Amino acid sequence: MAKDFPTRAENYSQWYNDLVIKADLAENSAVRGCMVIKPYGYAIWEKMQAALDRMFKDTGHSNAYFPLFIPKSFFSKEASHVEGFAKECAVVTHYRLKNSADGKEIVVDDDAKLEEELIIRPTSETIIWDTYRNWIQSYRDLPLLINQWANVVRWEMRTRLFLRTAEFLWQEGHTAHATAEEALEETMKILEIYANFAENWMAVPVIKGLKSPNERFAGAVDTYCIEALMQDGKALQAGTSHFLGQNFAKAFDVQFLSKENKLEYVWATSWGVSTRLMGALIMSHSDDNGLVLPPKLAPIQVVIVPIYKNYDQLAEISEKALAIKKALTDKGISVKYDDRDTQKPGWKFSEYEFKGVPVRLAIGPRDLENGTVEVARRDTLEKEIYQMTDIELKVANLLDKIQQNLFQKAHAFREENTFKVDTWEEFKEQIDKGGFVLAHWDGTTETEVKIKEETKATIRAIPFNNKPENGKCILTGRPSKERVIFAKSY
Amino acid sequence: MAKDFPTRAENYSQWYNDLVIKADLAENSAVRGCMVIKPYGYAIWEKMQAALDRMFKDTGHSNAYFPLFIPKSFFSKEASHVEGFAKECAVVTHYRLKNSADGKEIVVDDDAKLEEELIIRPTSETIIWDTYRNWIQSYRDLPLLINQWANVVRWEMRTRLFLRTAEFLWQEGHTAHATAEEALEETMKILEIYANFAENWMAVPVIKGLKSPNERFAGAVDTYCIEALMQDGKALQAGTSHFLGQNFAKAFDVQFLSKENKLEYVWATSWGVSTRLMGALIMSHSDDNGLVLPPKLAPIQVVIVPIYKNYDQLAEISEKALAIKKALTDKGISVKYDDRDTQKPGWKFSEYEFKGVPVRLAIGPRDLENGTVEVARRDTLEKEIYQMTDIELKVANLLDKIQQNLFQKAHAFREENTFKVDTWEEFKEQIDKGGFVLAHWDGTTETEVKIKEETKATIRAIPFNNKPENGKCILTGRPSKERVIFAKSY
Repeated sequence: MAKDFPTRAENYSQWYNDLVIKADLAENSAVRGCMVIKPYGYAIWEKMQAALDRMFKDTGHSNAYFPLFIPKSFFSKEASHVEGFAKECAVVTHYRLKNSADGKEIVVDDDAKLEEELIIRPTSETIIWDTYRNWIQSYRDLPLLINQWANVVRWEMRTRLFLRTAEFLWQEGHTAHATAEEALEETMKILEIYANFAENWMAVPVIKGLKSPNERFAGAVDTYCIEALMQDGKALQAGTSHFLGQNFAKAFDVQFLSKENKLEYVWATSWGVSTRLMGALIMSHSDDNGLVLPPKLAPIQVVIVPIYKNYDQLAEISEKALAIKKALTDKGISVKYDDRDTQKPGWKFSEYEFKGVPVRLAIGPRDLENGTVEVARRDTLEKEIYQMTDIELKVANLLDKIQQNLFQKAHAFREENTFKVDTWEEFKEQIDKGGFVLAHWDGTTETEVKIKEETKATIRAIPFNNKPENGKCILTGRPSKERVIFAKSY
Repeated sequence: MAKDFPTRAENYSQWYNDLVIKADLAENSAVRGCMVIKPYGYAIWEKMQAALDRMFKDTGHSNAYFPLFIPKSFFSKEASHVEGFAKECAVVTHYRLKNSADGKEIVVDDDAKLEEELIIRPTSETIIWDTYRNWIQSYRDLPLLINQWANVVRWEMRTRLFLRTAEFLWQEGHTAHATAEEALEETMKILEIYANFAENWMAVPVIKGLKSPNERFAGAVDTYCIEALMQDGKALQAGTSHFLGQNFAKAFDVQFLSKENKLEYVWATSWGVSTRLMGALIMSHSDDNGLVLPPKLAPIQVVIVPIYKNYDQLAEISEKALAIKKALTDKGISVKYDDRDTQKPGWKFSEYEFKGVPVRLAIGPRDLENGTVEVARRDTLEKEIYQMTDIELKVANLLDKIQQNLFQKAHAFREENTFKVDTWEEFKEQIDKGGFVLAHWDGTTETEVKIKEETKATIRAIPFNNKPENGKCILTGRPSKERVIFAKSY
């Protein structure tokens, strides 16, 4: 199967788009900016969901579901929130269609106009905090640790599959606490979960840090993030965890009676990751031969392909292959045995390579004689002959090794593409080349905005445990006490 | 904890509504007709989803995701489909808000009017078949077996928590086949899955059957259903599986090249169950003491409550209780140990009774001495003293017994409330009293509609394997060859 698509070097953005479509992950729909997530792509997303959901539940969170619609008036209650989201809202104004007067088409029924317009949620802080007002009376009702898996809509003008779409799928956590300390602790706990998931499931190394005020979530006191570096040298924000202070509690009048019998506003956090993670996953590991998936998130971890000349051979090979499949499945490994006779082995090899299946086993007549199996790994494209004895242990080990290798490779790439610069000229030059650029900044939004205007680079994060270091702002020369990470970003 | 709510006999519909709210399952939101599904209710829905999803996957289906929005023009392509859904559609007309001229409020930006309005999906046949056109070229692409878990919106005027809400959660399967036979087989396979789920997970007995033309899904050739009987004698449609023929393939021009190299239209099915199942679950088993949940869908299957006078006693009891909890958890049973010192045992007993937890274990000082534990079952409210030896096996057995008892009880109730009637007078009288009413019908939509107008009863199903029996239509006296099931319904 020849997948006609450009290399990363030729056209990175076309490579990405073609890969997503040709590997059957997603495609553009008939609705502007909205994607269809195809079964193979959705299977990866389901694995992501399962792992994250387990982590949320293990840390005491419960799932719930809130309405898709938000009354327009709710939006205006938190000033910076509406400022941040009003420009990209899908608005429901009517609740009925009817036949046109001439009976030839179907039109919106003007008699069915809503008294108050409804916004499709771009995020759910407002409807959720309106609900929390009735759920929280006393400190005994706190903390409230709730997560929601849902679709949201932000009317983006320029969209890209998974990375930026008008509708996307995500989880949004919304927690309520009695004190600022507890809320901050929650914000950090979730950031750790996100970083753990990114690094140990997605095999994507991330920087944990604080966002500069200009990059903060609309309505947050502080936004924390995990940032990853893609192969084209652009940064991708992979998850955010917000400390909301008492902003939403005040906007929606959510107060509680403290242990000291005082009426106080509730402290809040919110946090989310989305189908954007699919974009990060694809771009971090894939190569010019197609998709590369980390074993922990691969829908098919191992594919077995029989090599045979006639049906008698196939029957013999199948017996062995199905025994291996069973041994692997018993170890919790997901295996596909592809014995279709409509395609040749070579076609299957490139198909599964393109789809990023981590390990391929091939078994031919000679393997039966020798008690061997040919093992190919997708990450390095290396092939090796294994003895069949304990094949399930060897394959399980190999999957672990691939998982780690992908992380190490991505980590090494990031290290090689992280640069310290000290002058404005160096900065502009390096930003154009790509990568994480560590530079001094005078701490003002004014400077940040100017840098963005001139170079398209933004501050991706002020990293945690940042080394204090006296320096001068690359743009203004004013004093700075630490370097921050600049990059162009998705 | 006194839960002040009416008995079923006093006011069934108030009993249901109060139960849903006071048991923390769901509540009405600030958005008309939309509910908030609270964590305890959502945990039940998650268990339903997990069981159904497993069944779909085990029968070869994959999940995918299609857009929330449907272009208005898609809707008109299948004539009866638009007829069925146009009157209850939420319509998106704009994609931006802005500050009003006086800066005092936020208003819809008239410059951001969509060229073509978008409908929030009430069901996804149209957008999905528009997509399938590109996915299906040859018989090799068939069958296509896809399911979607999603939210949908139908602008209902009179809503009730879980039973009928403007937004609800559901799964919708959409499959494509090369022949009518295969599509029909799929329709039946899914109906069996639904029936199996209803009876063996929800413990709700259902009648499988065919819908009369008047009750058919808008766009289907035939609609098959499972129908359950609620405690107030009303029927509830718990799931539907539609044979769509080639209707949507023709509307969206989805053709394939057959093995015989002929261009043919694709055959289709669609099928769904929704959060409405929550309503069926609640109404089938619950009583005047609150919720009753079948063990297989209960978020907490067993609660352990310590009875103690002082902290030394609590410490001793906790040691035993935690050992039991571990033994139960190891058997895959979900257990909560409630050792809160802020509530008395009696309060906890009625709380978990109200929440429908199937089994309650109580351990006091005397139990420690005697090596016993008090076991209470929610379905019968019976208490018994068990020896602690092999407690996990005994509790596992008891959970099975409760699961079966709930089904048998509901089944007996349905049998007792299924009536054969042969005259119009009898019919009207029985329909008013409630229950499934088996009666002869002349097979015409005209008669069906008249019966509905006069009695509010509809044909719930023409049961499978119905006994042929010559009779006369209760309304018109015209000949009939089988009885069908009439009832008032949710």
